[in-house]
Amino acid sequence: MKALVYHGPGRKAWEDVPDAAIVEPTDVVVKVETTTICGTDLHILQGDVAAVTDGRILGHEAVGTVTEVGGAVRGFSVGDRVLVPAITKCGRCEYCQRGMPSHCQTVGGIGWIFGHLIDGTQAEFVRVPYADTSLYLVPPEVTDEQAIFLADSLPTGYEVGVLAGGVRPGHTVAVVGAGAVGLSAVLTTGLWGASKVIAIDSNKFRLEKALEFGATDAIEVGPGTVSDVVALTDGLGVDVAIEAVGYPETLLTAASLVRPGGTIANVGVHGTPVEIPMQDMWIANVTLTMGLVDTVSIPTLLKMVASGRIPAEKMGTHSFTFDQIDEAYEVFGNAAANLALKVVITP
Amino acid sequence: MKALVYHGPGRKAWEDVPDAAIVEPTDVVVKVETTTICGTDLHILQGDVAAVTDGRILGHEAVGTVTEVGGAVRGFSVGDRVLVPAITKCGRCEYCQRGMPSHCQTVGGIGWIFGHLIDGTQAEFVRVPYADTSLYLVPPEVTDEQAIFLADSLPTGYEVGVLAGGVRPGHTVAVVGAGAVGLSAVLTTGLWGASKVIAIDSNKFRLEKALEFGATDAIEVGPGTVSDVVALTDGLGVDVAIEAVGYPETLLTAASLVRPGGTIANVGVHGTPVEIPMQDMWIANVTLTMGLVDTVSIPTLLKMVASGRIPAEKMGTHSFTFDQIDEAYEVFGNAAANLALKVVITP
Repeated sequence: MKALVYHGPGRKAWEDVPDAAIVEPTDVVVKVETTTICGTDLHILQGDVAAVTDGRILGHEAVGTVTEVGGAVRGFSVGDRVLVPAITKCGRCEYCQRGMPSHCQTVGGIGWIFGHLIDGTQAEFVRVPYADTSLYLVPPEVTDEQAIFLADSLPTGYEVGVLAGGVRPGHTVAVVGAGAVGLSAVLTTGLWGASKVIAIDSNKFRLEKALEFGATDAIEVGPGTVSDVVALTDGLGVDVAIEAVGYPETLLTAASLVRPGGTIANVGVHGTPVEIPMQDMWIANVTLTMGLVDTVSIPTLLKMVASGRIPAEKMGTHSFTFDQIDEAYEVFGNAAANLALKVVITP
Repeated sequence: MKALVYHGPGRKAWEDVPDAAIVEPTDVVVKVETTTICGTDLHILQGDVAAVTDGRILGHEAVGTVTEVGGAVRGFSVGDRVLVPAITKCGRCEYCQRGMPSHCQTVGGIGWIFGHLIDGTQAEFVRVPYADTSLYLVPPEVTDEQAIFLADSLPTGYEVGVLAGGVRPGHTVAVVGAGAVGLSAVLTTGLWGASKVIAIDSNKFRLEKALEFGATDAIEVGPGTVSDVVALTDGLGVDVAIEAVGYPETLLTAASLVRPGGTIANVGVHGTPVEIPMQDMWIANVTLTMGLVDTVSIPTLLKMVASGRIPAEKMGTHSFTFDQIDEAYEVFGNAAANLALKVVITP
């Protein structure tokens, strides 16, 4: 089969590799019919993720069809159309049982293993371990071009932003960074009855998208950002500030926007330490949350997409075929300038 | 009357001042029969709290008797024995109504006003604003020497440590810093059914106290602290790490002790920024909480003291009279070396 193989920082190739096959009886093999690229894949290509070594097939998001089933699998059959999520869940360890498979102990303490510790989904076929507890059947009302964004970006914005932030009816919410994950938070914050959803970004295209996706206000980042948000929120700041970028400055912006008693939900992947102003923050009764997605909200999100409440297909702005995957990386690697959110890649 | 008056950094005096008196109809005046010193008072004397200006009477903790009552007060009468807590609550603003009077908007956005924005409790008498919503009657079963620690230190350890940390049955808990507030967390963590309470300090006396107050393990801080705690907690770290000191190193120690999905409850008052390793922490699904006490747990704590479940009187290790208040400050200012936890000051 063909797959996108990592060959060290800055090097990847769409090349021939051995076919994906059943290894454990709890595995299935899925023919990949739709995949996409995540910001994490870009980090890997920059050499930022040491655990990813030469020869690894990239990618951790897919929709496809089951083509082989291991002997212990009970919930899936050949021909099933399935969503392969970013997180693999044994379903039995303490973390899986409490709904936090992001730290599944069985698969190594981090549930994200595709395109990281095992071969991934940017390939014609992918082996899926712990299929019974990890895969999701895609309902007929949900298209591949919708379901693909439920593999990682939408649940990340929803779980690590909206749910961890504790958005409740009436809350005011700021989303710092309106890329794919920030927009996923915008798209799902309204479900919890937020009274205001304020999107903040430096890119006009993304701010337009934020308004289209349900933001009530869009603010182009600048020296007046904090005072603009404070003016929109009774002079106190927002109840929940969602950080969806991953730089020290954006986390500090989020921290400066939150009112006493509020929550800063960090969604961004950070590469450096962040100096936080504890001398001011300690007294403010704020909470800072952070984390890897669990993908346990996928059943909820599939229902909301099927019912038309979440127009997930709007996240896909550009489409490519497998043999155009280098071009797909180029477009996504410079998404804001290319007026791109997420790319859709098909055979 | 006599009171302890702040006269700028490093300067204070027990001196004659005008009598405390009713100003607003919602005020009462309380004759102070027991007070104490808080770490915050030491910060003020170091000049760290700019809002405290020359001429301010210090202190924010008292037990005493009501001697005058404003015309609008309905819940208290002359002769009532009351606890004056660190936080003043209007009872009507958004923050008071949701149980977070630490940020009472009516009294200035910070509910801590005694010995800060208005005259305090280290005095023969104190004016108490918003008496109906701020004061607590002391039940006959609770002594002054118990109640005084419910004005600030016990609710701080309980609310900002145990409750904000979300301690639940079976949890493992580390308390970094076994001073008065850390020990207050130790004393109240058991109420929530923690399976292990691990006290960490550099001072042997405090570690002995921690074991006496209910810690299951006491660890003298050193290079092996993290590995010792990890060995006690299935190799993963604690569910809840309570930071009760207020230095960058102690917050980072707490962060290094918590397992994925756990909570770091910062109780310490910080004077500088803290560089947190977000490059490692973002993926760990941890939560960092912080804040000023609300004192809304006082009714609960009074019941637990009355029933004998919380031996609050054990927090008081040294007693002084008002005319020995300088000595009281000296002992408390070097508490660990003096084998002191909290001081009790009476007329």
